[in-house]
Amino acid sequence: MAGKDDDVKVLGVVVSPFAIRVRIALNIKGVSYEYVEEDIFNKSELLLTSNPVHKKVPVLIHGGKPISESLVIVQYVDEVWAAAPSVLPADPYDRAVARFWAAYVDNNVSTVLYTVLAMAMSPKLFDEQLLMFPGMAGVLFAATEEERAAKAEETLAALAQLEKAFAECAGGKAFFGGDSIGYVDLALGSNLHWFEALRRLFGVALLDAGKTPLLAAWAKRFVEAEAAKGVVPDAGVAVELGKKLQARAAAASTAA
Amino acid sequence: MAGKDDDVKVLGVVVSPFAIRVRIALNIKGVSYEYVEEDIFNKSELLLTSNPVHKKVPVLIHGGKPISESLVIVQYVDEVWAAAPSVLPADPYDRAVARFWAAYVDNNVSTVLYTVLAMAMSPKLFDEQLLMFPGMAGVLFAATEEERAAKAEETLAALAQLEKAFAECAGGKAFFGGDSIGYVDLALGSNLHWFEALRRLFGVALLDAGKTPLLAAWAKRFVEAEAAKGVVPDAGVAVELGKKLQARAAAASTAA
Repeated sequence: MAGKDDDVKVLGVVVSPFAIRVRIALNIKGVSYEYVEEDIFNKSELLLTSNPVHKKVPVLIHGGKPISESLVIVQYVDEVWAAAPSVLPADPYDRAVARFWAAYVDNNVSTVLYTVLAMAMSPKLFDEQLLMFPGMAGVLFAATEEERAAKAEETLAALAQLEKAFAECAGGKAFFGGDSIGYVDLALGSNLHWFEALRRLFGVALLDAGKTPLLAAWAKRFVEAEAAKGVVPDAGVAVELGKKLQARAAAASTAA
Repeated sequence: MAGKDDDVKVLGVVVSPFAIRVRIALNIKGVSYEYVEEDIFNKSELLLTSNPVHKKVPVLIHGGKPISESLVIVQYVDEVWAAAPSVLPADPYDRAVARFWAAYVDNNVSTVLYTVLAMAMSPKLFDEQLLMFPGMAGVLFAATEEERAAKAEETLAALAQLEKAFAECAGGKAFFGGDSIGYVDLALGSNLHWFEALRRLFGVALLDAGKTPLLAAWAKRFVEAEAAKGVVPDAGVAVELGKKLQARAAAASTAA
């Protein structure tokens, strides 16, 4: 593997679940990398040229070649540094199950940062899409307390599905991936600071030891894992960004 | 590989791009399978129990174990029957590029059947989401001719991106995957009958030899490839379903 981990760069945003999963995956593999913080409201030339199609973080640049889309990057990392601990399981069926649940997390839970993209594109577009957001974005951008409660219920139902999936995938072990952090762990665990931010902002408890006890215990193990240390940020940063995004959404709503 | 292709079943819908890509992938691998046509408006018990989370096609059942989500299934097929021609390239970077573009196709082009799911869940939900659909669903469900033209423009812009991607990925060869059908070919090629259906229904030409000449020529090669024969349906079936879906959408809109 000598030389393989030369020249690895990650363009990210410190609160982005999508950037966080890439960074933890690199840590699992023991790959050292340069981390570059992006300003989502004022993107760098490097980001715009590295991901010209979506213009969003994360981007992994390895040996000068850019790769976008967080789960695509995580799989790339797993394949390039194949000799280090695996992120995806070895068995094709187990891999399919992990890919299924990771996609489920992205479609139903970790949706907050999609909205940033929508807003950056056009406030009108954002406004039109407002009703559509599932998961955490729905909670953050709800227009009324009633809508917020409904979106929180939806997200809790998704997490109840994931609680069941955890029981099936982990089989009594510490993580979805078994004894160490795997693909689904990365997908879901990269959102924990947003769960806490939504609790602080609105009193919405998405990770509830009463409703999803396995996930509540799993979350503690996730943030304490060696590979996650220093990557999962304090919820305060998400609270601040959440407030900023809410204000922009309200302004877009009024302008539309 | 003896025994591996025993007991393979696909639950699909004949016009579903997502089911079509699974069936072509199995054909590429030379795996014989039982195909079960589902009625999306009256789903079978087998479908509901095999994919309890999403309750949608396609499902691959291999040796009694169900796998859902079309691109997850295609990757599973590629990994299980690894000795047969590959769907994904071997090089990790090329694999990442293929995964990126396949996701791009699903988010920007092949969106028609998502709407079926939304409608089945709740007409109100469907109505709220109406403005949101990108790609072909946007063209199909546009409320006005002006909106339809705008959605067609968006989809054409996505196809222009894919034209550029084709030039880069195929490098002068016949397919995104090189000399034979690969991952991105499956993702995009499984939509060709819907392109034609939208042309017949609304005169919208999504695949235009003037605008995307490489893709127009590629589409002809795709439908004539051995693995795709008998799987890509006649556009007439999509036209009929398109009309039915439009009527349901209009009814949902009125009821909301």
